[in-house]
Amino acid sequence: MSGPRYTPLAASLPSTVPFVGPETQERARGSAFAARLGANESAFGPSPKAIAAMADAAAESWKYGDPENYDLRSALSTHLDVPMDAIVVGEGIDGLLGYLVRLLIGVGDAVVTSMGAYPTFNYHVAGFGGELHAVPYKGDYEDPDALLEMARQVDAKLIYFANPDNPMGTWHDAATVQRLIDGLPDGCVLCLDEAYGEFAPEGALPVIDVANPNVIRMRTFSKAYGLAGARVGYAIGHPELVSAFGKVRNHFGVNRVAQAGALAALQDQAWLADVVAQTAAARDALAAIATGLGLQPIPSATNFVTIDCGKGVERAKAILDSLVQAGCFVRMPFVSPQNRCVRVSAGKERELNLLKAELTAALSSLGSKAR
Amino acid sequence: MSGPRYTPLAASLPSTVPFVGPETQERARGSAFAARLGANESAFGPSPKAIAAMADAAAESWKYGDPENYDLRSALSTHLDVPMDAIVVGEGIDGLLGYLVRLLIGVGDAVVTSMGAYPTFNYHVAGFGGELHAVPYKGDYEDPDALLEMARQVDAKLIYFANPDNPMGTWHDAATVQRLIDGLPDGCVLCLDEAYGEFAPEGALPVIDVANPNVIRMRTFSKAYGLAGARVGYAIGHPELVSAFGKVRNHFGVNRVAQAGALAALQDQAWLADVVAQTAAARDALAAIATGLGLQPIPSATNFVTIDCGKGVERAKAILDSLVQAGCFVRMPFVSPQNRCVRVSAGKERELNLLKAELTAALSSLGSKAR
Repeated sequence: MSGPRYTPLAASLPSTVPFVGPETQERARGSAFAARLGANESAFGPSPKAIAAMADAAAESWKYGDPENYDLRSALSTHLDVPMDAIVVGEGIDGLLGYLVRLLIGVGDAVVTSMGAYPTFNYHVAGFGGELHAVPYKGDYEDPDALLEMARQVDAKLIYFANPDNPMGTWHDAATVQRLIDGLPDGCVLCLDEAYGEFAPEGALPVIDVANPNVIRMRTFSKAYGLAGARVGYAIGHPELVSAFGKVRNHFGVNRVAQAGALAALQDQAWLADVVAQTAAARDALAAIATGLGLQPIPSATNFVTIDCGKGVERAKAILDSLVQAGCFVRMPFVSPQNRCVRVSAGKERELNLLKAELTAALSSLGSKAR
Repeated sequence: MSGPRYTPLAASLPSTVPFVGPETQERARGSAFAARLGANESAFGPSPKAIAAMADAAAESWKYGDPENYDLRSALSTHLDVPMDAIVVGEGIDGLLGYLVRLLIGVGDAVVTSMGAYPTFNYHVAGFGGELHAVPYKGDYEDPDALLEMARQVDAKLIYFANPDNPMGTWHDAATVQRLIDGLPDGCVLCLDEAYGEFAPEGALPVIDVANPNVIRMRTFSKAYGLAGARVGYAIGHPELVSAFGKVRNHFGVNRVAQAGALAALQDQAWLADVVAQTAAARDALAAIATGLGLQPIPSATNFVTIDCGKGVERAKAILDSLVQAGCFVRMPFVSPQNRCVRVSAGKERELNLLKAELTAALSSLGSKAR
């Protein structure tokens, strides 16, 4: 008897995953990480009010969550001053990226991104058979002009652009992003990933304009709001594009407790401001650690610092391995030339002290403190 | 400037949703339901240990959940006595059905189900362009022979079959289901939805055989375990089919708190047994209420009772509307001849008393207590 008949596309897909989780590494090494600084989670945690709201909601878990995510969307609508029907909530930005790609991209359709940008976006594009065209970063910045030029060349239906960027942490000002928006070729959608938007300095995020049918902005409760484990992201865009998500999304996909947590987190803007301030301080501390050891921190508007280790991928990989072995979970960019770096999330003092000690030891054992 | 260029498939999809949530109805009517008996949630709630585990885990929500769902899969592996690599955890059965359909079904591929069976499965089939072929129920039972016959006729890649069934609550014994499994045409996969499996009597569920490449069984923490809002389902099947989910799933899609809750729920089998007993008693009570009012309860192996209102869809719809207006959230099957019924979930005594009172009133105002 013959087995399942996969679609040709499904049969062609690799079984690789975009990210291996820290728990997998912990199981492999047989002990927990002492510092969890690899997934750009917020070590400062969610608002205590969000924790309390989730603890309260736990007993109500026998009920499905509201498939409309009404209360959260209503609060976001007020907070962002955009209509509710311009907001869709989903299972993290990862889930929303999957839905967006599914709506727009079929086999052979052209998509443009930056070489080394978010791998989970690429995973979704491959998953629906899209043709990904990647342009190099310029310095350590995503290059809007190159993205537009490539989009015109390949008649892209979709461009991915993160501001601030991951994995480098760099950012563009709003005027530059607006030029990217204004320069979009006919029929091309810009997916503007603002997962780290709350950390960005004033003037980095363009004004939201949901009248533009071709821009969709992705935001999340996973980063500054400290709720990575909750899986609550949202997309903001033209109501027509936003309503199209209703054709394909898992309507009951967002956890009920998470909806309550995200709502409470949104309502505690004082906590958010405090986290952003603590994150900025941790970023400065990380930059100082790097500089003090002769490494080059790349300017960041996120909750991580990407550190140029100075001598290409082998050295960065050696440092990463050494840190991981010593109990510091960190990651590094996947492709050249960004993979001359290691990427370290903002953490609390204890974690940064450990990172400093282990990075010092790693460099020392590599035979040189300076590059 | 022209807008987004949707795929032809996405452009063709309707914006209808499989289910309108009770919260949407509550917002429309301006008040909360007094009895929530429409979504087959467990009014008896999750294990207190699961609630405690979730409350504890809430503070850890700043961390992503383990994308491998390792601890939960490991516990399920022990509980079910199947290898871990034969289990995949996802965002409820709804999410897993979407992944399964995506792996197997492309535009024009044939799928077989029963006329009036789970609409969310149909939603996913339509969403990936599959051709759905539905066979009638036989009496109020899904008809394995008719499913097989249709699958052969249309060269189906996938059959959907729920045991116990929703929306009718009926069930087949294991031998009958095994005949369905054994009769599968070459290259045809059976999706055996056992969402209500924990409520089924001894002897209704066939032995799990993960060596069979063509059977995948769907189970959930949403029903008997009382965690509908957590969004944790799992599929059990041949490791090759199960591993294929890794090509398309949202790897970080399962909420971290929910993973902890599901694990604790699984570990409290005494609570599960108590819920199953309380549910059976509530089912008997619901049947008695129906019978006492001259209506015909359909035998059920689930956590709901589907009640034949005796005079076709108009009468059932009138009763449903009356109940909903009176604050009892219930639902009814979508298609004929099942839509001569209303479907009422097992509830606590207070809810059943309210249901009895309002059902009595509804029948009385419809001019007849008997059919």
